[in-house]
Amino acid sequence: MTIKDKAAQAKNASIQMAATAADIKNKALSAIAHALTANTDRIIAANQADLDTAAAENLAAPLLKRLKFQKDKIQEAVDGINSLISLPDPVGVTLSAMELDQGLELYKVSSPIGVIGIVFESRPDALVQISSLCLKSGNAVMMKGGSEAAHTNRILADIINAAGISAGLPDGWLTLLEARSDVSDMLKLDHSIDLIIPRGSNEFVRYIMDNTTIPVLGHADGICHVYIDKTADVGMAVRVSVDSKCQYVAVCNAAETLLVHRETAREALPALKAALESKGVEIRGCAETMKIIDVKPATDEDWRTEYLDLIISVKIVASMDEAVNHINTFGSGHTDAIVTSDKSRGTRFMDLVDSADVFMNCSTRFADGFRFGLGAEVGISTSKIHARGPVGLEGLMIYKWRLVGDGHVVSDYSGENAKTFTHAPLQKRFGE
Amino acid sequence: MTIKDKAAQAKNASIQMAATAADIKNKALSAIAHALTANTDRIIAANQADLDTAAAENLAAPLLKRLKFQKDKIQEAVDGINSLISLPDPVGVTLSAMELDQGLELYKVSSPIGVIGIVFESRPDALVQISSLCLKSGNAVMMKGGSEAAHTNRILADIINAAGISAGLPDGWLTLLEARSDVSDMLKLDHSIDLIIPRGSNEFVRYIMDNTTIPVLGHADGICHVYIDKTADVGMAVRVSVDSKCQYVAVCNAAETLLVHRETAREALPALKAALESKGVEIRGCAETMKIIDVKPATDEDWRTEYLDLIISVKIVASMDEAVNHINTFGSGHTDAIVTSDKSRGTRFMDLVDSADVFMNCSTRFADGFRFGLGAEVGISTSKIHARGPVGLEGLMIYKWRLVGDGHVVSDYSGENAKTFTHAPLQKRFGE
Repeated sequence: MTIKDKAAQAKNASIQMAATAADIKNKALSAIAHALTANTDRIIAANQADLDTAAAENLAAPLLKRLKFQKDKIQEAVDGINSLISLPDPVGVTLSAMELDQGLELYKVSSPIGVIGIVFESRPDALVQISSLCLKSGNAVMMKGGSEAAHTNRILADIINAAGISAGLPDGWLTLLEARSDVSDMLKLDHSIDLIIPRGSNEFVRYIMDNTTIPVLGHADGICHVYIDKTADVGMAVRVSVDSKCQYVAVCNAAETLLVHRETAREALPALKAALESKGVEIRGCAETMKIIDVKPATDEDWRTEYLDLIISVKIVASMDEAVNHINTFGSGHTDAIVTSDKSRGTRFMDLVDSADVFMNCSTRFADGFRFGLGAEVGISTSKIHARGPVGLEGLMIYKWRLVGDGHVVSDYSGENAKTFTHAPLQKRFGE
Repeated sequence: MTIKDKAAQAKNASIQMAATAADIKNKALSAIAHALTANTDRIIAANQADLDTAAAENLAAPLLKRLKFQKDKIQEAVDGINSLISLPDPVGVTLSAMELDQGLELYKVSSPIGVIGIVFESRPDALVQISSLCLKSGNAVMMKGGSEAAHTNRILADIINAAGISAGLPDGWLTLLEARSDVSDMLKLDHSIDLIIPRGSNEFVRYIMDNTTIPVLGHADGICHVYIDKTADVGMAVRVSVDSKCQYVAVCNAAETLLVHRETAREALPALKAALESKGVEIRGCAETMKIIDVKPATDEDWRTEYLDLIISVKIVASMDEAVNHINTFGSGHTDAIVTSDKSRGTRFMDLVDSADVFMNCSTRFADGFRFGLGAEVGISTSKIHARGPVGLEGLMIYKWRLVGDGHVVSDYSGENAKTFTHAPLQKRFGE
């Protein structure tokens, strides 16, 4: 089958998936969880083959780590699927209901988006996680993984696909693409694929975003800021800054730049320096910062850099407006925090900072689907439409307008003796 | 200023617009309404200059009609603005609230998208309508109109921009682009423009959609179907079909194809023929249709054609599945209706048809923001994400996650003695 044929099959499957009952989808998730457990040894062997090849090819250590998918990761994936089963079905929820006129009722009802395209590097856990989220939400899925994980991806896709079909899902609900050229071909399938979710490095995600007219849900950079206002409690500022930078440095919601109000700089900077350096963080400061604490110089390039490492840049600002402007200029619209004892200044910061997550007096590291209580995380989006910040299952949902009449026609509502619309909200769900 | 400078100014303005209070925005709308009324003569004169040029260049009659923006259209535009003033402010609405832990509260709060790019042909009323919708929703707007309306667009943009600024809106909240090259430049500004709304012919909209990585809200084709089920009341089927085709033929929600279940064809087709032909509609039928009624033949090309005229194609189908498959293959995901006396078949049709609007026993012509009671219409979207079908002001909105703590850090929630999240829904709005 060509990729176009596969996409057409996925599109057909998506129609059936949208009408698949919740109990069939949950039965499929359960079958997948069992099959993954039952095939643990085969998965580990396939993954070992990928790991051996990668080691022989001197793949970098962090990539090797991400590629690894052994007993504990398999169990984690199975746990994730089991927790999905207990979530309510997101399909068919009445979002609003309105009587347009007597006997003419309009319902806005949640529905799956259709075909979700997943493109990911290394991590085989992304394959399991996203395909099960697509299943729960009634979407079909087309996936392309990195060639370094080819054996692992193939066995996982085979197991998941077969288990789903055995439970009653339609052929084509899951498609794994394997050829190198498939990625660029996939990015052109704007008539079949409705949404692309990329998982991988910044460069990888940016490449996807820049090379498709299909909507993309995700984020490239995570250049997050902590702004320490003149009204900040310095102890709190230090705790929040250290946690935002150090709690886990290699992730998108870690802070990369501290912005310090000039009026608190002489008090805050020495305390920040002591605390950050005790954690092994290298500080790079603006010229004014360097007059107060002894640190390396920061250049304009630092303001644009996502270190993902034990490095942080520090800039002194003359006002909150300057901080906001810096964030909106150099930030990535991901997560930015203010530390302040003045709630109205905090609210003003939240109004003006154009990011998915705007936080007051807490760490940027809270920006996460699990911590937000979303139940399951599809990804974190820095897009300005559809879904923003940590995205749960609702990011895989859209709606249809369902209008039910009794032979109603528009010509009755125009011209002489035109009927008028009642537009009265209804307190009932579709089908009731 | 280059287009990049203008876009940067619009981006800055969008930050201020997002934090502009509702009363300032309403004052600005009121000032715009007054200014349009006060400058009616100047607008009419500018429009007359465009109309004269267009007539001299032999512009087609429908285009001339759309270009016309005289007293009655100005009054309509002013009425539209006044009705916008009375709508509630869509910015700052708390969409959900949750306690993550004691003193750590998460709010999902509505916010404007940012910079909206409008590209439109001919119709100067689109300029007034969309710029006022952007204003109400706290977005900045960059617009490019057709050269045939250059004088009208310029005077309208000048009046609206100046009136908005006099009421307190930031410089750059509205930008009019005038150079021919500006459209293609605009489509590349994916760092400044967050959403494009095109208004014009199918070809025009498709060109926009195919040539930008910026999300597009709108629709190209409107190939809408009426499926007459074997369980349909024939009288109702005829009324709904005639209204769907004839009530206004030149619009996207008019029906272009009738699908008739084989079991009702012998009864329904003669009645449909009589009713449609009495309205001057040309019928093109499939081979099986032609055996029952005397009509012109339809080709495969007909199934893909949006006539926007008094022409309709008719196909006999053996089952509802065949009808659904035809619609999902040849339709445009806009609006499709079933006529049936069996509610469960109607629901099944609504489950399986992958369109923004799925209707039972009523005309496709109801697919419209005003009839849906949305208050104001941004456009009709056939996209599968963000907003679908008739889109009101909420299509110009997104949200931010606002998290308020008291020095909360993530390290307290990991490792030994880790605190746990409460994830308790809150019954209050942000700021309360």
